[in-house]
Amino acid sequence: MSLLRQYRRYAPPDLQRYCRFVVAGRHVGWVKPVLAKELAGRADVFQMAGADLKMQPALADAAQRSTAMASVLEDLRAQGRIPGWRSELYPVNQSFGETPLLVMERAAAPLFGVAAYGVNLNGFVGRGWEMKIWVARRAPTKSVDPNMLDLVVGGGQPLGLTPAENLLKECQEEAGIPAAIAERALPVGIVTLLIEAGEGLRVGQQFNFDLELPESFTPQNQDGEVAGFELVPVSELIHRLRSADDFMYDIALVLIDFLIRHGFVGPEERDYLPLIAGLRRPIPFAMEPVA
Amino acid sequence: MSLLRQYRRYAPPDLQRYCRFVVAGRHVGWVKPVLAKELAGRADVFQMAGADLKMQPALADAAQRSTAMASVLEDLRAQGRIPGWRSELYPVNQSFGETPLLVMERAAAPLFGVAAYGVNLNGFVGRGWEMKIWVARRAPTKSVDPNMLDLVVGGGQPLGLTPAENLLKECQEEAGIPAAIAERALPVGIVTLLIEAGEGLRVGQQFNFDLELPESFTPQNQDGEVAGFELVPVSELIHRLRSADDFMYDIALVLIDFLIRHGFVGPEERDYLPLIAGLRRPIPFAMEPVA
Repeated sequence: MSLLRQYRRYAPPDLQRYCRFVVAGRHVGWVKPVLAKELAGRADVFQMAGADLKMQPALADAAQRSTAMASVLEDLRAQGRIPGWRSELYPVNQSFGETPLLVMERAAAPLFGVAAYGVNLNGFVGRGWEMKIWVARRAPTKSVDPNMLDLVVGGGQPLGLTPAENLLKECQEEAGIPAAIAERALPVGIVTLLIEAGEGLRVGQQFNFDLELPESFTPQNQDGEVAGFELVPVSELIHRLRSADDFMYDIALVLIDFLIRHGFVGPEERDYLPLIAGLRRPIPFAMEPVA
Repeated sequence: MSLLRQYRRYAPPDLQRYCRFVVAGRHVGWVKPVLAKELAGRADVFQMAGADLKMQPALADAAQRSTAMASVLEDLRAQGRIPGWRSELYPVNQSFGETPLLVMERAAAPLFGVAAYGVNLNGFVGRGWEMKIWVARRAPTKSVDPNMLDLVVGGGQPLGLTPAENLLKECQEEAGIPAAIAERALPVGIVTLLIEAGEGLRVGQQFNFDLELPESFTPQNQDGEVAGFELVPVSELIHRLRSADDFMYDIALVLIDFLIRHGFVGPEERDYLPLIAGLRRPIPFAMEPVA
């Protein structure tokens, strides 16, 4: 079966059914109209401007906007409408690395359709068709995708760390990979994420790294978020991606990217070009300033 | 200087200033309005339909369309309006591998803004920052980009060969790489091309391959299209891409893709995400049928 099955697990979002979320004249997200209308009731924080939901211009800087957003999100949280609250602040901006226009709780990112960034590690042993890839079974207690298959290491990109620094931290926490090994990881590009989740729109850009691990190394989870690890031969990995939905949606994308970059899936593959196009859907923010 | 300089050598095309080129109800290209109007004068072959240039529906199959197109192109060639005529027939379709709607002379592809496909080889020796990449200086007699720097092997994708078969053929012709070595090349993805050239719109999808060459191997051009070869250390390659326009536009893209996939250019690079986005601009054909 075509590997495109992995992309078809979520319908492509119809952005015409969302309001743009605009902060300081910049289009930074997408909100469902029913939520936008409700939020506009908090006139100290939001307003509707045509079809756009804007943060109040009176909130003049990132600190004021972040405080106002936090108070709104606490209310939503109290109503049980933000599952998986993490107490992690994510920057909101149009492009990675820009000065944040505000910061907000990570778990609320899909409600506002703002871009979330992350890092992923493809950890493998061996070369060519002898290669095996380490994968993780997520703990049943995870708020997102419990029990599904994941990469050996991956995580959200917090404020104040570079992707490479974050990767080192996650390597230690998630798999017990010591820095001396983890720092050999190579950055190899990105995948983007654009899907309609139950709670809103997931917009993501994920920095991918490859790391050839020593044969003697076995991952050891340190943070309780992993039920176990498994070393999967590359041919079996391809078979599983063709025939089942064991892997998290975004992780399937990262693995397909890996298989394409390493020549395991080539131009003779049915749907090769659509597979490649689907790895990096353009991030749908209007880049010109909004009046 | 930012590697984005390589993308800025051509302005992004304004497609609103083109007519769609439609064949058998499929949008397969973009034509300048002044040319579209002229072509519509050949009412046996073309017609305007609103703002679209269509091939006459009376031309009922690929053979009839190809014959009619050939007669139009011969006229344009006789007027000196198709530089670099190659006597190579390219398939015209919406997506790679589809049954061609017609075939036409390769050199005329930009006049109609149809997609052209090609293969590229990144030939290198060594690993990590010790790596060196083979590049070629194009012969002064080439019709496109004479004297500029090119990959060691690359070429258009003709009818009747797979990309891998074409790569083997080009490896032999352009660099004397024997099949026993060339068949170790790994497919590693694509770059897309979307630029306004003097003669029209260049729309391309290029299949890229990586090949680690033996240290003892020196390329030997067989077809007279190369003035010479050079082995460039990866750090010097990056420097040249930052500071000069020695390389053909599309080859600079292929090399930036290589540098990103191999971790030589990572997230700490200024403009990392725009660089990645620019490697695969979406191919701008409307996929739904045109009435």
